[in-house]
Parts: sequence; C-alpha cells; structure tokens
Amino acid sequence: MEFLGEPRMELQGDQLVLRDFPPGPLDDYRKQAQFDWKKMKLFLEDPELLKLELKIWNRLRNDPLFQRHETEPTTEENKRLTALRLRRYVDYKFPSSDILKLPYKKRTRMMMTCNEALAVTFPEVSIKYAIGVGLFSNTIVTLGTERHRRYAYAGNHLLSCLALTEVAHGSNTKQMRTTATYDAHSQSFVINTPDFEAAKCWVGNLGKQCTIALLFAQLYTKGQCHGLHAFLVPIRDPNTLIPYPGIVVGDMGEKIGLHGIDNGFVLFNNYRIPRENLLNRTADVTPDGEYESSFTDPGRILGAALENLSMGRVGIMQESSNNLICAVAIAVRYAAVRKQFAPNGEGNNNSNELPIIEYQLHQWRLFPHMAAATVLRVFVNEFTETYLMVVDKSASTSTEIEDLSDMVSEIHALVSSAKPLMTWQCRDATQECREACGGHGFLKAARLGELRNIIDPCVTYEGDNNVLVQQTSNWLLRQRQKLSSPLGSCAFFKDHARISRCRYRVGRKEQVQTEQFIMESYQWLILYLIEETDKRQNEAQEAGADKFTARNEAQVYRAAMLSRTYAEYTALRYYWCKISKAESSLRLVLNELGSLYGLSCLDKHLAYFYQGSYASGPEMSRNVKDSILMLCKRLKSQSLGIIDALAPPDYVINSVLGRSDGRLYDNLEKTLMQNPKARSRPDWWYEIVDDSTKLQSKL
Amino acid sequence: MEFLGEPRMELQGDQLVLRDFPPGPLDDYRKQAQFDWKKMKLFLEDPELLKLELKIWNRLRNDPLFQRHETEPTTEENKRLTALRLRRYVDYKFPSSDILKLPYKKRTRMMMTCNEALAVTFPEVSIKYAIGVGLFSNTIVTLGTERHRRYAYAGNHLLSCLALTEVAHGSNTKQMRTTATYDAHSQSFVINTPDFEAAKCWVGNLGKQCTIALLFAQLYTKGQCHGLHAFLVPIRDPNTLIPYPGIVVGDMGEKIGLHGIDNGFVLFNNYRIPRENLLNRTADVTPDGEYESSFTDPGRILGAALENLSMGRVGIMQESSNNLICAVAIAVRYAAVRKQFAPNGEGNNNSNELPIIEYQLHQWRLFPHMAAATVLRVFVNEFTETYLMVVDKSASTSTEIEDLSDMVSEIHALVSSAKPLMTWQCRDATQECREACGGHGFLKAARLGELRNIIDPCVTYEGDNNVLVQQTSNWLLRQRQKLSSPLGSCAFFKDHARISRCRYRVGRKEQVQTEQFIMESYQWLILYLIEETDKRQNEAQEAGADKFTARNEAQVYRAAMLSRTYAEYTALRYYWCKISKAESSLRLVLNELGSLYGLSCLDKHLAYFYQGSYASGPEMSRNVKDSILMLCKRLKSQSLGIIDALAPPDYVINSVLGRSDGRLYDNLEKTLMQNPKARSRPDWWYEIVDDSTKLQSKL
Repeated sequence: MEFLGEPRMELQGDQLVLRDFPPGPLDDYRKQAQFDWKKMKLFLEDPELLKLELKIWNRLRNDPLFQRHETEPTTEENKRLTALRLRRYVDYKFPSSDILKLPYKKRTRMMMTCNEALAVTFPEVSIKYAIGVGLFSNTIVTLGTERHRRYAYAGNHLLSCLALTEVAHGSNTKQMRTTATYDAHSQSFVINTPDFEAAKCWVGNLGKQCTIALLFAQLYTKGQCHGLHAFLVPIRDPNTLIPYPGIVVGDMGEKIGLHGIDNGFVLFNNYRIPRENLLNRTADVTPDGEYESSFTDPGRILGAALENLSMGRVGIMQESSNNLICAVAIAVRYAAVRKQFAPNGEGNNNSNELPIIEYQLHQWRLFPHMAAATVLRVFVNEFTETYLMVVDKSASTSTEIEDLSDMVSEIHALVSSAKPLMTWQCRDATQECREACGGHGFLKAARLGELRNIIDPCVTYEGDNNVLVQQTSNWLLRQRQKLSSPLGSCAFFKDHARISRCRYRVGRKEQVQTEQFIMESYQWLILYLIEETDKRQNEAQEAGADKFTARNEAQVYRAAMLSRTYAEYTALRYYWCKISKAESSLRLVLNELGSLYGLSCLDKHLAYFYQGSYASGPEMSRNVKDSILMLCKRLKSQSLGIIDALAPPDYVINSVLGRSDGRLYDNLEKTLMQNPKARSRPDWWYEIVDDSTKLQSKL
Repeated sequence: MEFLGEPRMELQGDQLVLRDFPPGPLDDYRKQAQFDWKKMKLFLEDPELLKLELKIWNRLRNDPLFQRHETEPTTEENKRLTALRLRRYVDYKFPSSDILKLPYKKRTRMMMTCNEALAVTFPEVSIKYAIGVGLFSNTIVTLGTERHRRYAYAGNHLLSCLALTEVAHGSNTKQMRTTATYDAHSQSFVINTPDFEAAKCWVGNLGKQCTIALLFAQLYTKGQCHGLHAFLVPIRDPNTLIPYPGIVVGDMGEKIGLHGIDNGFVLFNNYRIPRENLLNRTADVTPDGEYESSFTDPGRILGAALENLSMGRVGIMQESSNNLICAVAIAVRYAAVRKQFAPNGEGNNNSNELPIIEYQLHQWRLFPHMAAATVLRVFVNEFTETYLMVVDKSASTSTEIEDLSDMVSEIHALVSSAKPLMTWQCRDATQECREACGGHGFLKAARLGELRNIIDPCVTYEGDNNVLVQQTSNWLLRQRQKLSSPLGSCAFFKDHARISRCRYRVGRKEQVQTEQFIMESYQWLILYLIEETDKRQNEAQEAGADKFTARNEAQVYRAAMLSRTYAEYTALRYYWCKISKAESSLRLVLNELGSLYGLSCLDKHLAYFYQGSYASGPEMSRNVKDSILMLCKRLKSQSLGIIDALAPPDYVINSVLGRSDGRLYDNLEKTLMQNPKARSRPDWWYEIVDDSTKLQSKL
C-alpha cells in the first residue's frame, strides 16, 4: 500500500519531529481535544525509543522486500517472503552493532523496541526472528556455557527453533516423552521419539528452514531419568537445507493464520549428538556418564530461568498493546468520518447524518477499548522497566538471594496474569473494531483481520492463557499467608481485615469515577476472591478431594477470576502511578481514561460485589453503568487527540480505513481502483459461461 | 480430506439408518450417557429433512469438484472453484424437480434444508447460490410481475446479485443515492451513480461473475423522487462476461474471509435500461412517465416484503446453528481424548493424566456452548415452522389483515433479535472452541478457523446486528401499550403488575435450575429493561432531546440489552415447549441443557437483578453460579451422547480433531504425514542459504 502524505512524526537527522496534521475531515473532532496530542505522545512513549522505531520503519519502508501485497500470496510464497525478510532484517543489525557495549537493561530495552517495531509491521518476521535468533541466543547464553557461545551470534549462518511441545503434550511440560540417552561408549546422546504422540510439533522455523534446534528432552544416563534438559540438535545441512539422516522432519501444513511461519514437527530415531551439545550451565554429564548438578551460581541460574520463561511473554504483552492501539485507531478514526442516520430520520439530505462516533452505543463499543489501549500501553512500558530491573538484579550475585527470589516469583505471577489479560483484551478489541467498521472492516486493506489473526494464537502459545492464570492464583493464595510482595502488587494484603469490612458508600455518582473508589473496590474484590477460592478448596479437601482436585474445583468464578482482577488492578496501579507525573494539561483526560478502563472492567464483575455484600440496592450498579456512559460521552471530544497520541504512523497502521488524513472514501476509492485485477475478466471466464449460451452464440 | 470408516448415519434406498459407533477411545464417555443418541437425534431433527441432507452430502462427497483442498488455494482459484461448484450445484436441482408441486410451506422448508446442507459443507457456494439464484428468483416472484417471470427460473443461464449497499451507506437504506430517472422519450430508466460514495459495493457475485443485477435505486420521474425501487439491470454479456458500456464494475479485492465470493462494486454513468425492468408489483411508471402505486393486494405485498426482509436472516440463523454444533462437537470430542496433568502431578506415567473434559474450567468453557447449540438448534427448527406459517398466511388474501399485520411485526421483531443472538453466540463459541483445542485448533484441518471466518461477516450482513436489535426494542416498547402478540412472545406483558413485584425467593440451590425459575426471572428482567429504557427516553426528551436522540441515549444497558434478553427468552420458550413432548428417557438431559443455557445467560445479567431489587444478598448470584457448575459436572457424563445426537457426519464436520472415531492422534498423524509437500525441501531453499556458507562449501 502506498504511503500517503507527509508523515506526522519523523526523524530529521537525529531529531524527532512531530508536526500538526494537515486540514481534513477529522479536523472538527481533532479541534475538540483539550490537550496537545504531541505532548501526550511524548509522555506515553520514551522519545529515544520512538526514534529507534522510526529508524527501523524508515528502513523497511524503503526496502522493496518489505512492501505489502494487495493480493494475499500463497502460503508457500508467504513462507518464502518471510524467510527472505528475516535474513534481510538480521543483516540490518538493528539497533546497531554498538549495542553490546551498553548495560544489560538499556541494551535489552532497545532490543525489545526493535522487536516491537518489527512486530507491528511484519509480525511473522518478528516471530521467526524471536524464535530463531533472539530466544536461541538468549538460551545459549543463559543455559549454556562457554563452549556454546559460538552459536549465539551466528547471524544468518544458523537459524534455530525451540522444540518443546509434543503432539500429545503442551502445557504439561514435565510429561514430555522425547528421550536423550547418554552413551558413554561414543560419548554422545542418542535422541529418540517413542511414538507419534511424542513427536515435537508446532515448532516455529522447524517446518522448512531451521538448521539447528534447541531441543528439550528427558535426559537418561546409567538407566536413570534426570528430567527435561536442553540440547543443541543439528537438523539440516546449512549448505543444502537437507535434513540429516535419522530425522523425520516436516511442516505442520496449512494453518488459520501466521502463514509465513514454517511450524514443523520432528521425530528422532536413534539420532546421535555429541555430549557437548547438552546446555550444561545447571547440570552436566561427565564423559563416563555421571550426572552432575552444578548449582554453584543460583542467582544467575534463577535469573536465567526467569528470563527464559518470561521474556517471550513480555514481548507478547508489548506486541498486544501495539496491535490493540492499531485496531482502536482504525475504528475510532472510521467512526469520526462514517455517517449514518439523521435526527429527523427522513429526507434525502445527507448533511444531516451523524458520524457514528456520536452514538452512545458506538462510543460504548469502542471507548472502553481505547481506554484499555492507553492503560495497558502505559502499564507494559512501565512494567518492562520493573521486569528488566529484576532480571538484571537476578543476574548479579551480589544481591541478597532471599528477597530476589520473592521478587522473581512476583514477576512471574504478574506476567502469568498480564499476558492473558492483554492478549484476551486485544482479541476482543480487534473483533469489536472489525464489527464497528461494518462491511468495510472485512477488507484485507482495513487490516483488522490481520490484527485479529495475529493475536489469536498469542492466547495459546508461550503458555496457554487458561493454564498461566493458575500460576498467578496459586501464588496469590500463598501471599495471603506470606505477605511478601517486594514489588508491592499485594501490599494491601496486610490491610486485609480493614478492607474486607469495607462497603459501598458513595453519595454522588461521580465519586465512582475516582482512582480511589476504583482501586479500593479492586482491593476488596481481590481479597474476597481469595477467600472464596480458599473456602472452596477447603470444602473440597474436607470432602475427601486431593489438593490437585480441590484446586481444579475452585477455578471458575474463583481462582481464574482472581487472576484476572489482580491483573487489571496491577495494570491500573502502574498506570495511575505514571500519570501522577503528567503535566496538568494531560492529567484530566488520562484520569478519565483510567476511570473508564477500571469501571468497564468492574462492570463485568458487579455480581461479586453484591454476592459478597459489598453492595446492596441499586446504587453501585447504576452508578458504575451511568459513569461509564458519562465518561464515554466526555471522551468523545478527546478521542481523536487520544488516538493521534497513541497511534503509530500510517505506514505502520497500514489501514485504508484508519489513515490519519481521515479521507476515508478517497482512500477507499484509490484502493479499489488501483487494484490491477479488480476490473479484469477472470482468466477462467469461459469455464462458467453456460454451454447452451455458448452454443447459441456460435449458431 | 479422506472419509474414514463406515458412516453412522446413512441412506439405504429411502431408509434412514442410524448405527452404533464402533469401539474406540470415546467409548468410556459414550457409555456414561444415560440416553440413546439415536433417539435424541430423531427427536431433534425431522427424519425426512435428515434424509434430504444425506442425499445431498452423498452426492457432493462423490463429486471430484467438491473435494476439499489440503493447501489453501489462491483467492483467484477459490473464486474459480466456487463459481464452478455453484454451476454444478444448480445442475443437481436439489431437492428434486417435483418440488414445485408441493405446498409453499413444505416446499420452502425443503429448499431451506438444501441450503443448510450446502452451507455447512461449502458455505461460499451456498452464499453465491442464495444471492445469485434463491434471493433473485424470490424477489422476482414477490416484487415483480408476469413480465419478469422468465428471469426467475433461468438456472445457469443467468447469475444475479443484489445491489443495495453503497460505499457510504449501509444500514440507512433510505439514504441510498443511486438514481434511476425515467426518460419518457426513450421509455427507459437512466441509471446514475452521483459519485464514488454512492457506488454500489460489497455486492456478492458482482465482482467477476454476475450477468444481471437486482438494483435498488431512487426512482425519479417528472422531476420527483419516489424513493427506493428495485430494477433488473444487465451487467455483463452472458456469452463473454464482458461488462456492458456505461458501467464501471470491479471486484472489492482481498478480504479477510469468504475468498470464494466475488464481492464487487459498480458505478453507472447514464446507463439505460428498459422501462419494463422496474419490478412493478407495488408501483409502476407509465410509458409517459406517470408514477402509479398499485397497492391492490396488500396481503400479498406485505408477505412479499416480509419474506424479502427476513428469509435471508432465517437462513443465517439456520447456518449459525449448524456451525455452532460443528464447533462444539469438535471441541468436546477433543476434550474427551486430549489429556493433561494428573492428580499426583508428578512422575512420568502418562496413564494418570486426566482428559481435559474432567476439569471444571474446561467444562465451563465448553458446556454452556453445547447447551446453546442444543437450545438454539431446537429453537431455529421450531421457529422456522412458525415463520413459514406466517409467510404462507400473509400470501393468502383470505386472512383477516389486522391480526396478520401484528403477526408479521412480531415475526420481524423475533428475527431482528434472534439473528444477532445466534450469530454472536456462534462467533463466541467458535473462538472459545479454537482456544479450547489449543495449538492443534490452529490447524486448518481442525476447521475451527473456517467456522469462525464464516460466522464473522454474518454479524454484519443481512442487517448489522447492532442496528437490527433496535428494531426489536422499538417494537417491544410499543407492545407495552399495545399488548398485541399473536405469536405469544409477549403474552406475559399483561401480567406486568404482578411480575414486576416478584422477588428472588428460592430455598434450595436446585430450584434455580428449573424452567419455572428461569422463565420467570426472564419475564421480570424484560419488563424491568422496558421500564428502564422507557424512563431514560422520557428523561432525555424532558431534557429537550428529540425522539431520535432520546432513543439513542437509551441503548446501552437498556434497549440493546432488552432485545438480547428477549431473544434468549424466546429461544428458551420454543425449546421448552418442544421438549415437553420428548419421551421421558430424553427429558432429563434436555431439561438440564435448557437450564444450563438459561442460567449461563442469566449469569451475565445478574447485576440487573440486584440493581432492580429483584434480588439482594448473596443467594441469587451464588445459586446461579453454583448451579451452572453443578450442571456442567452432571452433563459431563452425557456430553458425548449429546454431541453424537447433534453432530452431522464426519464428512460434514471435516475436522481432524473432531472425528467421531475419537482417534485423535492417529488422525493427526495421517493428516501430517499424508501432506505431500510437508517433508519436501522448499523450491526456494537456495535463496535462504547463507552466501558465505555457500561460498565456503564451494571452496
């Protein structure tokens, strides 16, 4: 798709320049905003990181290999293009080769930003890169030792994959059945796949392309199993891409999205790898087959484990927040231009028709997602800082280990609930935005379909959402006793007695719109759900259930909801902390966005407040609902400014419906008319002309 | 995809034969069902219609043109295949050429069943047929006169489309801007598209294929506009498929689904059609340009208008219920075979792992959708009978018009809320089922992606759901005064005073599971939402808003929710009426399914019961939620039987995860291993081998 007009945000040399939008159909609403979108953008995002993103986007925009296609390529061509783009992207060496000199936190944040910039434009390339280069190097560094370093920075010489999931086992990683049996005689591990159910599958990059796999298999030596370990396993000859003997490797076949990724499966049959290919930071096998655990450096190992578990999930959170912003930007800009029905309802005068953004129902469909986009964007930016701080600390042995271990647990609980929250939120928003753009939302050029298809697998991979949230609820239940929350997410647990006695007591409707009301309600709700979960678990155990069963019986309406509300609360906590530092011209609207997000989440949980006797009578429900509608109405005039502040440039959003110029119908006309094959007769026309008609015309 | 094993349901001559399933992994759960799935199937579906479906499926299954593709064809090839299949399907002349002799109701029901059978296997062919043949013939018969009849049964000689939507107008049909101006001199209408915003668009079949359009345009004669009328407009030469001069016609380009449909746009420039091409049943223009309205036969015209409005929506309801059944069947069968985690949590012994259907959370994710599939299937079957009865009556002038008009309004209100209910339910279910099948649900061969992509546009086309529901709520608000509900959906309005005073008063938890409790709760809720809507409208009008604005201000939490609850209530009403006739061995489980559907809907509305003081204290919320979990647990043992009763044959469901043999991993293995290109090196391998590597290997 062509890039139209002068960009509103660009690099001039090393300077970030933001410019006003030229006059156009969005002017009326843009002028209603009572703040400067440029100030808000620079408040929401780090200018240095914005510059890095612009640098990447400018490069891709001018590279023929990174042009978008009007017609969907075949799956095969999609794979080829994604593979070529990945190689090119690696060659670009973003952010720059100087990066290794920077301290860990700064360096990693920049790498993450590069990933965000790539993921929001070419998500499949980003996934291939993350799996095949980023995760691989990372794991080598954190789980391997000196002898594996040479693999970590191999650039385009190697492409890797991470083979963990098996056909019959996903979330339950301990039950993986692929074996690596040490043979002292040849000093090698012999890898075997017992049957098809234990074939590694869904492995990204494995289907057609990868040359080496990071394989997780049960380590056996001297007849004993030592659990899951990671091995470097050559898959294909890098010169020919022909798989090595002893391997059956193939592509998963057609999927319902991510067509550019070659997800694959592999079965091993007495496949040998050298002993040295075990990633041996935490444990090793001696040449004669002794298993040795080497927990000499627990701080580093803990950090490594954490980073491996969470880094991918934090990346998904960042990508989700970008996709959410794109979807909402498209739908809100569309709603400000698209008109439908008029107050008098009759007559042929179009000028009376209202933009659909004026309708209560339409505001209510979109603005809570816009509020979520803002809150979750701030949250993920701020949380990333916390996250990297903890990872950094955990890699330094000087820190006291006890506190660190609690911090690592808390990070894990936060990520395990926030990744589900953000991916589900984005899933719902992309669908609602598609529907809110009507039939035009069904165009590929609208991009909402792609955004939806990208987020869909995110709820499953890197930890199935429904399984992940259980790790958070288990942690929260432990916190009630332990009260150890170094990052402060459960600090309020110590006020348990006071908070649990709180009751809904609001005079004016507007009070429910305050941070104080929303956060106190959440604190009560979280403690209530802990009680409820705990009670149900105890009841089940008293009735004879084992702990595993008792936990399962306390998921619905209890533990699962607990994780959800905790994630929402945490996101709001980070958000309000950040916006307290905003200048006053921004604070009002940022506050309203926080309130709208908080209340529209609480609205879905209202029954718990009544069930737990926090509220009784009509007021709470009525005030929450009325406040949501009031906030929607007020945010209407701010909405185009909010979108301008959140949205990346048009090239990135890449939607015919969501351009910043607001020239919806001109842009649609260009898209439809410029499509080279739109108006040509199909090549196969003669096959569908009726035979009798053809006959007639011959006579 | 290959058809495996002996079908469980087949035609032997003219006999319908149902057979037990052969032994397999689903046996354990199948045996737990306390009823005979065959009895239930024959209770849920009309055996004559089942036979008709089997006849169609058998024919398609043996036709090379109707084989499924493992790899996704290009969009162009998709269009070609769909066009060829449409021609073949028309040639098959289902159900049979005798059909014209049958009475209207029976004939139409059979045509609808044919559409269902086609839509559940080849949805795009069904859509092309519905638009290009069914809707076209129907409209000719109902809006045209004798002179148009020859177009109605043209078979493959013509393919039509329905051109109503314009680029800038969808739901607001009155504002369409395409004009048809009568020119008495040449006795023709001159069609014009004032600008791109008035181009007809999204028209199915128009993009590449159709030869004639049913065009809706503003009729002008003698300088006066008479509103929207339907015209027959030749588009392409049937011999060459080349568009006629004066038309710019093209394809909408790449979409996010329905790739086989050639949705198109068209602009007219002084394009002339003969005067006779006006469909002139309700109004005509004389040769010298006088406009004459011919309302001589209001009964017929009313029926025609109704049929044109609603027939497509009833078709969508039927298709949604079939798609919903397929999605749920796939996910429930998968859940009964797929295992994950074990009570002891440790050890490598797989045999301890539980099928995921055993988990409370998983039951709660799937079984409410299974209950919805059952209830909505019964509803749509029963409602179709009512619908056809009313259409039939309205076509006969002998009926008293007053009552009929009320009946037609009620049908319209029912359809306008039920089409949104069912399409949204199916949208949510297909997504949840995809997620519940984890990564494997992301395979194209799982079919959940296709089911989701088919339902997605259904929430927009044939009346945008969010606009449609307003027609229902407007009607309901009028009913409060009028109390005229010949079909009985609002019969309880007359008990308004008594019902509004009702309060939640239940002793035992189990009482909330009864039909009586659920239906009474719904009646209270519907009346409460009518009050709330009315009150808000009045408040707005008292504050100076016009009626249009007042209505818009009362949508969220009020009118929109009112339509939703009315649709749920109506579906349950039809359902419980039907199952009261079930034999006792089926009644218990059917009752539980009704209760689960009702309660899981009410669960989402709980806050209204507290807000309206119907309930206070913990009991109602707690009992509703606990009952849902109890019902889920009880239905676990019945679930495989329910699925066997609901599900069409394997060929139709066409999912590697949802086969009735339950051999999940065998089927997956075959699918992966039989894919011809899965294990071959990509043709483009040399493009992604590193140059330096290549260099090295040359040295």
